[in-house]
Amino acid sequence: MSSSLTQILSRIEPLDGNIMELARKRQDSLTKPGGSLGKLEDVSVRIAGMRRSIMPVLSNKAIVVMAADHGVVAEGVSAYPQSVTHQMVSPFLTGCAAVNVFARHIGALVIVVDMGVIGGFEANPLLENRSIAFGTNNMATGPAMTRRQAIESLEAGIAVAEAQISHGLDIVGTGDMGIGNTTAASAVCAAITGKPAAVVTGRGTGIDNEQLIHKVEVINRALEINKPDSEDAIDVLSRVGGFEIGGLAGVMLAGAANRIPVVIDGFISGAAALVAVKLSPQVKDYIIASHLSVEPGHRIMLEYLGLEPLLDLDMRLGEGTGAALGITLAEVSVKILNEMKTFDEAGVSDKDSGG
Amino acid sequence: MSSSLTQILSRIEPLDGNIMELARKRQDSLTKPGGSLGKLEDVSVRIAGMRRSIMPVLSNKAIVVMAADHGVVAEGVSAYPQSVTHQMVSPFLTGCAAVNVFARHIGALVIVVDMGVIGGFEANPLLENRSIAFGTNNMATGPAMTRRQAIESLEAGIAVAEAQISHGLDIVGTGDMGIGNTTAASAVCAAITGKPAAVVTGRGTGIDNEQLIHKVEVINRALEINKPDSEDAIDVLSRVGGFEIGGLAGVMLAGAANRIPVVIDGFISGAAALVAVKLSPQVKDYIIASHLSVEPGHRIMLEYLGLEPLLDLDMRLGEGTGAALGITLAEVSVKILNEMKTFDEAGVSDKDSGG
Repeated sequence: MSSSLTQILSRIEPLDGNIMELARKRQDSLTKPGGSLGKLEDVSVRIAGMRRSIMPVLSNKAIVVMAADHGVVAEGVSAYPQSVTHQMVSPFLTGCAAVNVFARHIGALVIVVDMGVIGGFEANPLLENRSIAFGTNNMATGPAMTRRQAIESLEAGIAVAEAQISHGLDIVGTGDMGIGNTTAASAVCAAITGKPAAVVTGRGTGIDNEQLIHKVEVINRALEINKPDSEDAIDVLSRVGGFEIGGLAGVMLAGAANRIPVVIDGFISGAAALVAVKLSPQVKDYIIASHLSVEPGHRIMLEYLGLEPLLDLDMRLGEGTGAALGITLAEVSVKILNEMKTFDEAGVSDKDSGG
Repeated sequence: MSSSLTQILSRIEPLDGNIMELARKRQDSLTKPGGSLGKLEDVSVRIAGMRRSIMPVLSNKAIVVMAADHGVVAEGVSAYPQSVTHQMVSPFLTGCAAVNVFARHIGALVIVVDMGVIGGFEANPLLENRSIAFGTNNMATGPAMTRRQAIESLEAGIAVAEAQISHGLDIVGTGDMGIGNTTAASAVCAAITGKPAAVVTGRGTGIDNEQLIHKVEVINRALEINKPDSEDAIDVLSRVGGFEIGGLAGVMLAGAANRIPVVIDGFISGAAALVAVKLSPQVKDYIIASHLSVEPGHRIMLEYLGLEPLLDLDMRLGEGTGAALGITLAEVSVKILNEMKTFDEAGVSDKDSGG
């Protein structure tokens, strides 16, 4: 492991239990029946524990969208041509892709990162170039990337997140773009959770039954050829992962090390979370699962991670669209702690007053 | 029935099926896999059908919070003293109640309406006085209100909503405050859906097992004494309803008549929706169910209405907090139609391009 990765891992600490207890007490004292804001109260308490503040403020929001290509597309696993990865970066930059609409709606920045798109891009101040290579290798015939590249992808994600955090970012969402990346995410899920490929694999952008059977077969072949070591996250990432999966895992590690909430999107971000949590189990405490994707493996990932999604809207778009909605829920959850009054402050009778 | 109520009912029309088809086609042509935004796409298509526009814009948002007292509180059905209804109006007006936090977060106004709070309030430009009476009568000993008062409450809600709509309101949320109102809402639910009180009744603001058994017994007594006619919504409202339930039903009728989306909150709004839809089944098409409340009767209401909630966050606060989150989801759903580009416009290869 490299020094920058080792260093980040050494900085990840548990949530602050004392602050969480005080935040829970504050929630209970606000002018509402105790616990009546359900999961939002739990989220606010966790964020208090991350931020070490009973009344944390989240004012700088961003969604990091990482794009990369996947060699396994050569096996015919996607409904869309590989060139779509490259083509979609342009709408991200001009603000007319789905994630831009969602991010504007919630007042978040979109940070677009090229983690390894085939062909690359001309220099553009709106696009962060962290390209590891022009796409991964075909994991159905050998490792998707070298171990060195896997570490580089993690470190690139750490660098992207830490640069934003140093400018005041206090909550980050994760998003992805990469034709073929549900195939990689399914393989990562199977490798780490031990569930069969047939169980964790879904239709991605929308393949039919025959293509789904083929996709499962390709994933099984990749797992067989590569034999990823389920206890070694970097091995899994290098053999059957992707550059954006590594990059997003790096964002999660950096978020946890810097004690900011990381709101994860759907299936691809889930695969990245598996890698990050395998590297440092404590990372899980800093992750907020925004939504449950239609991809069947996503539920398995979240159960493995012990995370409960906030939303279930039958979404399966990626890009960070679900993360955007999760960020706005996280934000309102801490506004409750900040902007509501207690029964005492508001002069309202509490339950104990009887009547 | 009065003329203003009859007139509103006569104005409620079906959604525009042609526009909905065109909106669905537009969703399918945007740069994302078809259907990948799940329930948000469905919501956007419904709103298009309401607004008769393929790219509807929702810019003026408000949550109507109606407060009223309930005579049935005399039976000891609530964990909080009756005076809390009156006390909570002040935080609504000063902006530090839960619904204010949520409304500010999503950029919506809060319209506070006194539908019948005991004691009433001094004149205040921020508080709309539509008080029918200082609380309903105790439904466990006779009708909660007269038939005339039930109609008045519906008309008050219509008037409140139409005043806002005439000033440009294009999406409305519903919220409530009223100690004892889950007892009334449970009775309305039992009366209209035909389900037993024991099945539809929950813990409201947080009563224990013994109190819950007592609450069910009170509701059964109210149903037995009043024998509400399940086919006559006004009879149900007058015998076991509440002034805020009638008022919110009026808001829903006015929303439907004026073709704007009505985002309903939880259990109390659900009871109002039962009344409104019983008066005019078409109203259902204009209702967006924001969230599934912890109150067990809420699921039964939504199933009866054929509505699927967008969120399930274990919330049970009322006030319109869930509606606020539903409004922001509805808003982003139509922003997708407005702000995303099609594959053609963006120069991105669609599925058909193969590869």
